[in-house]
Amino acid sequence: MTAGAVSPLACPLPVLPEIEGVRLAVGSAGIRYQGRTDLLLAELAPGTQVAGVFTRNRCPGAPVDWCRSALKSGKARALVVNAGNANVFTGRAGVEATTATARAAAALIGCREKSVFLASTGVIGQVLPHQKLVDALPGLHDKLRADTWADAARAIMTTDTFAKAATRTARIGETEIRVTGIAKGSGMIAPDMATMLAFVFTDAAIPAPVLQALLARGVAGSFNRTTVDSDTSTSDTVLLFATGRARHKKITDRSDKWVKPFAEALNAVLQDLALMVVRDGEGAQKLVRIDVSGATSRASATRIGMAIANSPLVKTAIAGEDANWGRIVMAVGKAGEPADRDRLCVSIGGVTMARDGAVVPDYDETPVVAHMRGREIEIAVDLQLGSGRATVWTCDLTHGYIDINGAYRS
Amino acid sequence: MTAGAVSPLACPLPVLPEIEGVRLAVGSAGIRYQGRTDLLLAELAPGTQVAGVFTRNRCPGAPVDWCRSALKSGKARALVVNAGNANVFTGRAGVEATTATARAAAALIGCREKSVFLASTGVIGQVLPHQKLVDALPGLHDKLRADTWADAARAIMTTDTFAKAATRTARIGETEIRVTGIAKGSGMIAPDMATMLAFVFTDAAIPAPVLQALLARGVAGSFNRTTVDSDTSTSDTVLLFATGRARHKKITDRSDKWVKPFAEALNAVLQDLALMVVRDGEGAQKLVRIDVSGATSRASATRIGMAIANSPLVKTAIAGEDANWGRIVMAVGKAGEPADRDRLCVSIGGVTMARDGAVVPDYDETPVVAHMRGREIEIAVDLQLGSGRATVWTCDLTHGYIDINGAYRS
Repeated sequence: MTAGAVSPLACPLPVLPEIEGVRLAVGSAGIRYQGRTDLLLAELAPGTQVAGVFTRNRCPGAPVDWCRSALKSGKARALVVNAGNANVFTGRAGVEATTATARAAAALIGCREKSVFLASTGVIGQVLPHQKLVDALPGLHDKLRADTWADAARAIMTTDTFAKAATRTARIGETEIRVTGIAKGSGMIAPDMATMLAFVFTDAAIPAPVLQALLARGVAGSFNRTTVDSDTSTSDTVLLFATGRARHKKITDRSDKWVKPFAEALNAVLQDLALMVVRDGEGAQKLVRIDVSGATSRASATRIGMAIANSPLVKTAIAGEDANWGRIVMAVGKAGEPADRDRLCVSIGGVTMARDGAVVPDYDETPVVAHMRGREIEIAVDLQLGSGRATVWTCDLTHGYIDINGAYRS
Repeated sequence: MTAGAVSPLACPLPVLPEIEGVRLAVGSAGIRYQGRTDLLLAELAPGTQVAGVFTRNRCPGAPVDWCRSALKSGKARALVVNAGNANVFTGRAGVEATTATARAAAALIGCREKSVFLASTGVIGQVLPHQKLVDALPGLHDKLRADTWADAARAIMTTDTFAKAATRTARIGETEIRVTGIAKGSGMIAPDMATMLAFVFTDAAIPAPVLQALLARGVAGSFNRTTVDSDTSTSDTVLLFATGRARHKKITDRSDKWVKPFAEALNAVLQDLALMVVRDGEGAQKLVRIDVSGATSRASATRIGMAIANSPLVKTAIAGEDANWGRIVMAVGKAGEPADRDRLCVSIGGVTMARDGAVVPDYDETPVVAHMRGREIEIAVDLQLGSGRATVWTCDLTHGYIDINGAYRS
């Protein structure tokens, strides 16, 4: 893969309908990139409820600290996102950058500073030149529109090779509601937290505590089941904004029967976005789905799946189109979870290659070879110990990853 | 790096003196490689005591199962090692291969089958053609010699680019004893177990329980502090053989004052071998030493060091000669260990680049750039939380790793 080329696994940007109560604008603040947009302002209608899930990295960026604090009220009026500088490990200067940016946006929108949510990704450890953001925001505020979703998805990209968005509708009573999300992410993508940046917007009217419960569960089943390189970012942020402009019957708690259709739409958007991030994994040439069954629990199945998904030897074998199931066995064994070598079964592309602890002597290699040459690889592991199952996703490990990450700062 | 080229971090093979009670022979059994040796037979004098440490991978190879069982007696008379086929995940055929090989060696040496130790590395999941080993062993037995250490070190290599051996002497009372080890390993090298194959021989007379305690401790401080690619092999084996031919005063337990000089020599050999494996990490261009201090415990410092050492983003930055300390911060934060971003300090090549949670504004980049261009990279992280410290070693992640592992089986 040439640096700069679009991932062969890219998805086209879907048509993104307006969400009542959300207006967007993008601009070029010149933070790091030249000749492209790098700043997004989203204005949210009064009364917008918000939920958030953040990185579990112990060295979070200043914008993550800011959002955690802002989230306490459950209310949001604006979102400011910049690309090119993560504002991570920047000490007092980083805190000042978040405060100054939020203050500038709050003055334009006419809201409290703590109703402004912030996200930054890019280089770690360089002070964010926040005056560039502050100077650019009035121009963005002047051109806020409801139909600029594609521009928004592009403005937040860093090493991404394609813009990422997903949208769904659902019915709450008689009312159709919309859920639309945008995301960015390509490297420093790892399990066990909300990964990278994703912003999901809905016109549904759902209170913040319910949103928070739904988002936490949705992230656990989507972003937290993906990995590109096992490296947990310091900036990971998923925010869900509900403007409440859809005129459906009131939802006050999680047991309401109309929560379910909303949650399904939300989960579908989160799942789409999570897989787009893996499809744009740095250097990725193949999307890999790993189904683990027969584990002693779902948590155990997930850890085994992630051990396979994070194994450099499995990932380089896939890059080389080699159905090297022996490395899958190695990765199952290193996971530290209950596993019995002599009951283990491994399939690739639906063909069982190893069963009960040994190679299947007469398996047909032809369909396996053809499957390995494709863009989407399916691995299935059955431990035959219990009923725990999990599916995780990753991509292959190629020269493109080394190219991108050996020269990122220079 | 071109596949087949010798690692730029290679060490020359030292002069390896004879160890009384050990005779060696190598041969070409044609298991996988052509035009090179791939089989080692070591004969050990009657009375040889043995200790072993093995992989913690839950899918160990049949030779690992065999050695664990053979180790119970604490006695050894022979070692048979083949390269090119790991005899892992081979079911009943794998068990038969170990039994047949041990039986053949035992008949030649004149000992019990369970006094024969076995190790195999190479491809996983292919049945070991053990008849080739059985047929070759008599030829090796005929040419056993005490001075063929260099040949032995070469015969056990797989993707290794240089042969690995280390030797030390120590004094037990008035008697000089020798400790010599050989090792192989280059990929599928990961922490938290005895990594790869290493065989250490001494003429000291030390009973098996004492040897076992010393070996476990020595491995914890050497091999278990290294990683190439985070992938724990299914074949990892470290064996320590003590022929007892040195005429020193008897050592019966671990508290004996003469255990200490022996342990120091043993640990030095293990440390040398472990670093040679990292120096020969697949595709390695740079050896990386990571010193963690100020952690809440030694175990915590080790886990933080390993999180840095296993981070693909840190390793690719080093390959690109980029002193990207922000990625080191990310790796510290993702380790899941106690860490306070605002106290963290990071140095590279002795220059402190980040202190107390922010970049050092006026640090001198010139020596850092020069250091990154070198072959040996030193990273120091101080958490400023406690007195826990640990040192771990790894190598960079380069195109060479992808080349080697994308095409290993084909």
